Amino acid sequence: MNQPRGTLKKLINDPFKVVDEMLEAFASAHPDIVSLTAPRVVARAEKSGPKVALAIGGGSGHEPAMLGYVGYGMADVAAIGNIFAAPSPDIIHESIVQADNGKGVVLVYGNYSGDILNCRLAVQRAKADGIDVRTVFVSDDVASAGPAEIDKRRGIAGDIVVFKVTGAAAEAGMALDEVERIARKAVAQTRSMGVALTSAELPGVERPIFESGPDEMDVGMGAHGEPGISREPIRSADEVGRLLGEHILDDLACPAGSRTAVLVNGFGATPLLEQYLVYRAARATLVARGMTVERSYVGEFITTLQMAGASVTVTLLDDELASLLDAPVRTVRLVN
Amino acid sequence: MNQPRGTLKKLINDPFKVVDEMLEAFASAHPDIVSLTAPRVVARAEKSGPKVALAIGGGSGHEPAMLGYVGYGMADVAAIGNIFAAPSPDIIHESIVQADNGKGVVLVYGNYSGDILNCRLAVQRAKADGIDVRTVFVSDDVASAGPAEIDKRRGIAGDIVVFKVTGAAAEAGMALDEVERIARKAVAQTRSMGVALTSAELPGVERPIFESGPDEMDVGMGAHGEPGISREPIRSADEVGRLLGEHILDDLACPAGSRTAVLVNGFGATPLLEQYLVYRAARATLVARGMTVERSYVGEFITTLQMAGASVTVTLLDDELASLLDAPVRTVRLVN
Repeated sequence: MNQPRGTLKKLINDPFKVVDEMLEAFASAHPDIVSLTAPRVVARAEKSGPKVALAIGGGSGHEPAMLGYVGYGMADVAAIGNIFAAPSPDIIHESIVQADNGKGVVLVYGNYSGDILNCRLAVQRAKADGIDVRTVFVSDDVASAGPAEIDKRRGIAGDIVVFKVTGAAAEAGMALDEVERIARKAVAQTRSMGVALTSAELPGVERPIFESGPDEMDVGMGAHGEPGISREPIRSADEVGRLLGEHILDDLACPAGSRTAVLVNGFGATPLLEQYLVYRAARATLVARGMTVERSYVGEFITTLQMAGASVTVTLLDDELASLLDAPVRTVRLVN
Repeated sequence: MNQPRGTLKKLINDPFKVVDEMLEAFASAHPDIVSLTAPRVVARAEKSGPKVALAIGGGSGHEPAMLGYVGYGMADVAAIGNIFAAPSPDIIHESIVQADNGKGVVLVYGNYSGDILNCRLAVQRAKADGIDVRTVFVSDDVASAGPAEIDKRRGIAGDIVVFKVTGAAAEAGMALDEVERIARKAVAQTRSMGVALTSAELPGVERPIFESGPDEMDVGMGAHGEPGISREPIRSADEVGRLLGEHILDDLACPAGSRTAVLVNGFGATPLLEQYLVYRAARATLVARGMTVERSYVGEFITTLQMAGASVTVTLLDDELASLLDAPVRTVRLVN
């Protein structure tokens, strides 16, 4: 095999074709749920009837995000970028056009400069086409900016919660203003933070994104290796879960008695067993502060290739969000 | 943190408590689906009415197996062992007693000497209790013994297919003889094989299970680091998918036109993106031999902690097995 090889072993072919080969495989594996309707657009296998559409997207290398969330009750389309790169304005525009059922489109993306710029260009063109598009950027990562600059925060695993409730609102027949309101409310009530133990390495690149010592972890590191808050000695699952839970709760400033959903997201190489240990400690931290944990999700929802580590996401629930989280969904990654 | 540490970074607490802490977390996260009814027994949250029961089990470190497959339409209970170790006869016996609804129990385990011995002891006691138990061992790994010694083959990701169709048969109200027949048929029609790129490392152990060079892969390696067929230079995803597909098809000796289900299982550290590339190549190999791929599953179904690599599983389908694969299921890992 003559592929450029880095320090991490990979099962790939041409590193410049990994995204398109993955999309081809994904569509062929799940034809009852999705269809590859343009080279980088994953749409529902059956276009839905008149309803507000949810269009999502982002870079590749985060699978099952974003393509794993296309289907009944969640997204209508996902626009797919290269590894860790925003989809192009052309692709996002095409995805909006395909998603639209005449009732308008809510576009939900992670809050990254490339995504923001390309979404803006795509939305300008979609509006010129006569499509009403509302754009919502998820900014759940409390480690990426202070509470006074929430609009500078990155979107990480909180994406999944926002996709779920927004897709459910659209599926329930809510009007465009209402679906947008739900998405913004979910963003406002969701916070996340993670620790990275090892780095990912991009296909065709010869070095990991970052390197840390054998006993070190990066607290608050982003989903593409963006710098975190601090590099520290690795701590126990109990300490990590408590650390993340406390950072999140300090930021959310929610009163005792608050109802929550907790999502623990594995970054790629951390075993599910360890993710459950982090969940256990985060849950205990919430319970100690008088919160109730009403919904729980543990697994790999949005990965960073083979990075080791995990994040905790907390969403403050009310009856409306809880009901939308529980609504029927049929995607490759999430099924109710 | 004073935990014994190996070469791989982990998010754990006391290495001797990882299994019980994980079980506590799992039960607290998913109370609508499962309940921890004894220290190492995961049962359905709601015991089902009179029907044949499916009891599964195995070592830990393979999550989401086995506990992720307990729920409506699949297993009634899972007996949980230590990391990579069979559950004790006591635990298996307790799980059988809890599973039994008066219609008998089918016990499905991977074909390993520890599991065989402990199941035998547990079944003797369950029979003395008056419970009719049928035991089926899954032996899908074609790399672990030749076709003349199928009873010596290890059980790997084929487990999941057997659990699914057996659980569906039991849920459909089939009698004990019939449910056992389905399990044996699924075993007979299922083959798997994988490649490992890097090793797992047990919590509290200072070295990986095995070590290979930076450009090497182990073909046919077992789910606990058991020796494979050969150690070779890493090949492309196309070559690995073809290699695995051809080994499997040579062993199954199925005629052109055969209907199949294909499952690609990630071992833990290999990204989902890469698993889809292996799926793509395996699928192409089957199609080139005139098979049709009717059902596809790609993801982490039975892992080996943080081992990198993936396996391919092929099941020959008929109407009966296809219908049982599609039957409703509600477990933590699989939902229809």
